[in-house]
Amino acid sequence: MIIDCHGHYTTTPAAHQTFRDAQLARLDDPGLPVPAPTAISDDEIRDSIESNQLRVQSERGTDMTLFSPRASSMEHHVTDPATAAAWARACNDLIHRVTGLFPRNFAAVCQLPQTPGGELTGSVAELRRCVGELGFVGCNLNPDPSGGYWTGPPMTDEYWYPLYEALAELDVPAMIHVSQSRNPDAHTLGAHYLNADTSVFMQLVQGDLFARFPSLRFVIPHGGGAVPYHWGRYQGLTVRMGRPPLAGHVMGNVFFDSCVYHQAGMDLLLRVIGPGNVLFASEMLGAVRGINPETGSGWDDTKRYADRAGLGEHDLQQVFEDNARRVYPRLDAQLKSAEAAG
Amino acid sequence: MIIDCHGHYTTTPAAHQTFRDAQLARLDDPGLPVPAPTAISDDEIRDSIESNQLRVQSERGTDMTLFSPRASSMEHHVTDPATAAAWARACNDLIHRVTGLFPRNFAAVCQLPQTPGGELTGSVAELRRCVGELGFVGCNLNPDPSGGYWTGPPMTDEYWYPLYEALAELDVPAMIHVSQSRNPDAHTLGAHYLNADTSVFMQLVQGDLFARFPSLRFVIPHGGGAVPYHWGRYQGLTVRMGRPPLAGHVMGNVFFDSCVYHQAGMDLLLRVIGPGNVLFASEMLGAVRGINPETGSGWDDTKRYADRAGLGEHDLQQVFEDNARRVYPRLDAQLKSAEAAG
Repeated sequence: MIIDCHGHYTTTPAAHQTFRDAQLARLDDPGLPVPAPTAISDDEIRDSIESNQLRVQSERGTDMTLFSPRASSMEHHVTDPATAAAWARACNDLIHRVTGLFPRNFAAVCQLPQTPGGELTGSVAELRRCVGELGFVGCNLNPDPSGGYWTGPPMTDEYWYPLYEALAELDVPAMIHVSQSRNPDAHTLGAHYLNADTSVFMQLVQGDLFARFPSLRFVIPHGGGAVPYHWGRYQGLTVRMGRPPLAGHVMGNVFFDSCVYHQAGMDLLLRVIGPGNVLFASEMLGAVRGINPETGSGWDDTKRYADRAGLGEHDLQQVFEDNARRVYPRLDAQLKSAEAAG
Repeated sequence: MIIDCHGHYTTTPAAHQTFRDAQLARLDDPGLPVPAPTAISDDEIRDSIESNQLRVQSERGTDMTLFSPRASSMEHHVTDPATAAAWARACNDLIHRVTGLFPRNFAAVCQLPQTPGGELTGSVAELRRCVGELGFVGCNLNPDPSGGYWTGPPMTDEYWYPLYEALAELDVPAMIHVSQSRNPDAHTLGAHYLNADTSVFMQLVQGDLFARFPSLRFVIPHGGGAVPYHWGRYQGLTVRMGRPPLAGHVMGNVFFDSCVYHQAGMDLLLRVIGPGNVLFASEMLGAVRGINPETGSGWDDTKRYADRAGLGEHDLQQVFEDNARRVYPRLDAQLKSAEAAG
């Protein structure tokens, strides 16, 4: 089985955005009524998935995608908690319906109703609802709700502890994923995403978060930002700063996904980080769509790169399946239950 | 000849910091007298260089370092223009003395007196003084004077044009280099430096700066941040965004240095970007000092990685020398003049 740990519902029916637009309009004009999520039929959802993510799964030979709401649309920079809560709920409910319609192909990962500097009570409640009531197997966690201005505390700060306690209790990991950049200096897809991955990794090097939360697990997407390419820098800095070696201090709890869109990058990731800390992922249909004219295949067809990275069968099995089952034990349980049911 | 395009004077005599401390003290207490740079003898400078950068040059077999003031001490977040001007002048004068004492081993690159959102008049004047009067061959340019909050405009904005006009007229390149991070989310050496490299590259993809300034040249340090590792992402985004191909749009004017501190990273850089756009650099003695216990050599001994990257003689010659002479024509002229003088 090939598990893709990183996919977003980027092809939602238009009615979903209509609801969001109504939310934002009401923030501008509080005299407007509180909008309710627009009705979307099962057929509309089926169409939006079958012609997109399900088609690509089939073409590329992957089996199961961990599926979450569109990252750039989480829009945690919008400060109103009630708006954030209703938006996250609507987004997550839609993901739940996708996994209900295609249980063999998608497992659910939720969006949290974060706001810049806001209390995490609502995020903990939505996490509990999604995991406890709806069968979600993980969440996305935004380290910069301000959207590119980095006005909040590092991920090692006590601010985040209520959420970490819930993650540990529920035994689900968080993928560290920012939303859209509001800052013209940092393009969302070409800078902000990667910079966030890099910054958070270094925060974890500086802090001692996993001493406090030994079972907490983070997936850092986009191949770990700049980190694997600069692995020597991090090893050297660790020594210079008197931090414990990365292996025990960070890499027992941190995993990189494989969203690196060329062969040389994938080769480096697997060579430097090793197959034990890499989870297969493509983020299709995501930031980078279209065909590389030099190879004739999709830029984000990361399975091709992984297949050609020279890994042995055991290592490839870890990257494609075993690591994901280990990092997402609720996914593993669901898969085993489905296998037992035939 | 092996030219290291990226070195900072990180080992200045203590008196230099005494001056800086006096500057900052006066900002807190304007009743204090305006400080003057503390006297430093030639012998103190010689000692600080001979036992450090010159020793390492000799040990590693490199010949010439492009030498600029300590990057993290540029402190462009300090908003007072007069303080910034006096500090940049003192830092640059010290670099000028180093190159006067060791003209065969160091060429001078200057710091600009930038301030967050401040006019660039003082920066243009200091650039002209350094290049026109003191023989400097390039400058460092900080894309985020705010120190990690990114409150200014992108590098493609007209705000920067007066400086670009001066760079073009003087025919000197700028190394894009931030100073210390004031933001606890982004560690200076482990996140802010790399993120800045990544963000600026993407700004250049988004904009059309080199159509407006066809002779302008930027060196993006630290191996180009995350960019080479994510080269497929940038190629795919370029197509998706309808931007021109990177080769003509950006890579005719942008060069990456080779400050990547492990073999796999160097291999990727040279494989993906190619020897025509990489300038040899180590940033010794910089962010990452000390010995890698697995190899027994310095993390930042990038010459070892470059030597082992499998390049042919011609390609290695480009990376070690020819590209630097091309990107820094005033360095080339100085070297030719010194060679002619025997």
